[in-house]
Amino acid sequence: MATVDRWLLPDGIEEVLPPQAACIEAARRQVLDLFQRWGYELVITPHIEYLESLLTGAGQDLDLRTFKVTDPLSGRQMGLRADITPQVARIDAHTLRREGPSRLCYAGSVVHAKPRALATSRSPIQLGAELYGDASPASDIEVISLMLDTLSLAQVADVHMDLGHVGIYRGLCEAAGVTGEVEQRLFDALQRKAIDEVVELTASLPGELASMLRALVDLSGERDVLDLAQACLVAAPPAVQQALDELVAVADALELRFPELPLYFDLAELRGYHYHTGVVFAAFVPGVGQSIAQGGRYDDIGADFGRARPATGFSTDLKTLVSLGQFREAPAVGAIWAPDNHDLYLWQAVQRLRQEGRQVLQALPGQDLQAARAAGCSQRLEWLDGRWQLLPLTA
Amino acid sequence: MATVDRWLLPDGIEEVLPPQAACIEAARRQVLDLFQRWGYELVITPHIEYLESLLTGAGQDLDLRTFKVTDPLSGRQMGLRADITPQVARIDAHTLRREGPSRLCYAGSVVHAKPRALATSRSPIQLGAELYGDASPASDIEVISLMLDTLSLAQVADVHMDLGHVGIYRGLCEAAGVTGEVEQRLFDALQRKAIDEVVELTASLPGELASMLRALVDLSGERDVLDLAQACLVAAPPAVQQALDELVAVADALELRFPELPLYFDLAELRGYHYHTGVVFAAFVPGVGQSIAQGGRYDDIGADFGRARPATGFSTDLKTLVSLGQFREAPAVGAIWAPDNHDLYLWQAVQRLRQEGRQVLQALPGQDLQAARAAGCSQRLEWLDGRWQLLPLTA
Repeated sequence: MATVDRWLLPDGIEEVLPPQAACIEAARRQVLDLFQRWGYELVITPHIEYLESLLTGAGQDLDLRTFKVTDPLSGRQMGLRADITPQVARIDAHTLRREGPSRLCYAGSVVHAKPRALATSRSPIQLGAELYGDASPASDIEVISLMLDTLSLAQVADVHMDLGHVGIYRGLCEAAGVTGEVEQRLFDALQRKAIDEVVELTASLPGELASMLRALVDLSGERDVLDLAQACLVAAPPAVQQALDELVAVADALELRFPELPLYFDLAELRGYHYHTGVVFAAFVPGVGQSIAQGGRYDDIGADFGRARPATGFSTDLKTLVSLGQFREAPAVGAIWAPDNHDLYLWQAVQRLRQEGRQVLQALPGQDLQAARAAGCSQRLEWLDGRWQLLPLTA
Repeated sequence: MATVDRWLLPDGIEEVLPPQAACIEAARRQVLDLFQRWGYELVITPHIEYLESLLTGAGQDLDLRTFKVTDPLSGRQMGLRADITPQVARIDAHTLRREGPSRLCYAGSVVHAKPRALATSRSPIQLGAELYGDASPASDIEVISLMLDTLSLAQVADVHMDLGHVGIYRGLCEAAGVTGEVEQRLFDALQRKAIDEVVELTASLPGELASMLRALVDLSGERDVLDLAQACLVAAPPAVQQALDELVAVADALELRFPELPLYFDLAELRGYHYHTGVVFAAFVPGVGQSIAQGGRYDDIGADFGRARPATGFSTDLKTLVSLGQFREAPAVGAIWAPDNHDLYLWQAVQRLRQEGRQVLQALPGQDLQAARAAGCSQRLEWLDGRWQLLPLTA
């Protein structure tokens, strides 16, 4: 490998330099503080663990996106986390085992073997919040509100939201006895809104259920779509009705809380790693093809870890938030330049200033005041009248 | 795999739960803020990159500790970072390419395929600071002082320091023409202070150099060891003399700045991934076998990335600091309990309190004030006299 190649980073893998890294750190703190104020407790999940723990309940998408290695200590297969949500679900289900609702949040890098889309990062910094133990729409409303508050903190402009409910499609399939490969093909066709394929795949089903499944393709748009859906699905099984009612409850609450927010509904929208079970949602901004924050309900995931708990949550990528948004910045205070001098009193003066929160750069041998100016210092320490004093740099 | 096994974590891989995760986050912020006040700029390095970039100049120890995977996009071998220092050296040498000294710092998880020692974590959170571009002892003094300030911030008690200088051994070997396998065996023997082996391996060397190499085994102890070394090495080549002078300069400065700190010197101490070239140092506390923070000079590492720059730095593990130390904690303010109510005015009151920095938990369906008490709330919001008011929880 030639020297010239040695510092190339793999496609989709980024390093973050100053001052951008400091912006990301500041944004990380602001978002985690917001989560804290909403009552979400931080957990730190491992970057690597046994593959079966990582992928349980998460589906094939995540499997393909996960790097695998063999653990030299146990000989077992491990994976690099490509998503933190299933790890947090395990912590809730197995490790914490709390009674009643539990709010958890996280922030950390994930690595994707394959990018989610063309020219997408393979090393996002995933931020998210999860609410366990409550199956009602109140939880969905809370996590969506928190997601919107996060985007608002980041000052991301022109956000619009897509909302759906996986239970509508699932309930119809269940009632129609659609399973296995057919269900998978129907799922794919609906995602692509390929009406011809949907018609073909539902041709042999009972007429009423077939037409309801076909109707899903067109059930997308603004709020009136929900009224249309209530009409179309009036003969649907109770589970489908309940799903629709939940979606309406979420829509009502969001319209009340965020009257300016454009809301779109799509009953054929079934995103995610196939682990969602209820309300699903995603936030978009113009000019970005992928959702910038997304989530949904995934009530079944904890069962594989010994305890089925209702669960809903959202996640986003910190780097995306920083690049699309505009986090508040602390007002800049100029740094202080200390001369290259090992005098004890200078050391004590420097340490006192640092303890007061000031940034102090000590000159290294050969550095003069030009280096101080280049480093953005506004003051310098100088020995004057028997003590180390702060003077303006220009003096 | 049975359900009961699915949530086991691999040996040495930890998850961090509430409230411990919040302590680690608070400590992380305090240390990064300290680094900032010393003028160190944050960089964020990738968790995974091409193996040759990760291991360049870093030696075999790091190779054995690094998990390898194949990149499906490029087909090339990648590694999980097991150490962040070589990544930051690459950023300094190649990406930033600044003239003059440069101060960089980082904080992030690393993963070790094999633990550094028995029962040691394989997933530490590595924190560190690196100073590039200055070859003088002033830089070594600065990074050691910053390391000690970090341990002081963490309130780690009973710290003592070991100091050495790789240049002394290197200079003697070079003068004696000891290279390759013999140099490696001599290195190992010195590390183990195996005097018989050292005598045997140096038997055929010129008498004066042989006795100086042998003397290294005994040159360990308190400050007077440096005086002894100056006597023993009086006939050593200039490079060795200079190395010793550098070590004396560092010792003098540390004694001035940290008069209470026990300092030990060991001229046969040659820690690290074989990438150190000058002063090396480590901090220990009683009862912990491994060093809790360590570092040294590694002037050659950047050369492989196109630019040889003087470099010195230190690293530590955040989890170790939190478990051994005692970071300041923010005074706890009780949380506020909001009822399960989707009233718009309640939402506005809750959001206002959160914007003021208060933590507000909103009740989920079925939760009563007992849940509020269990969650540590001290106040609640109640609708009284036509507005949402804050009342004590006990009322």
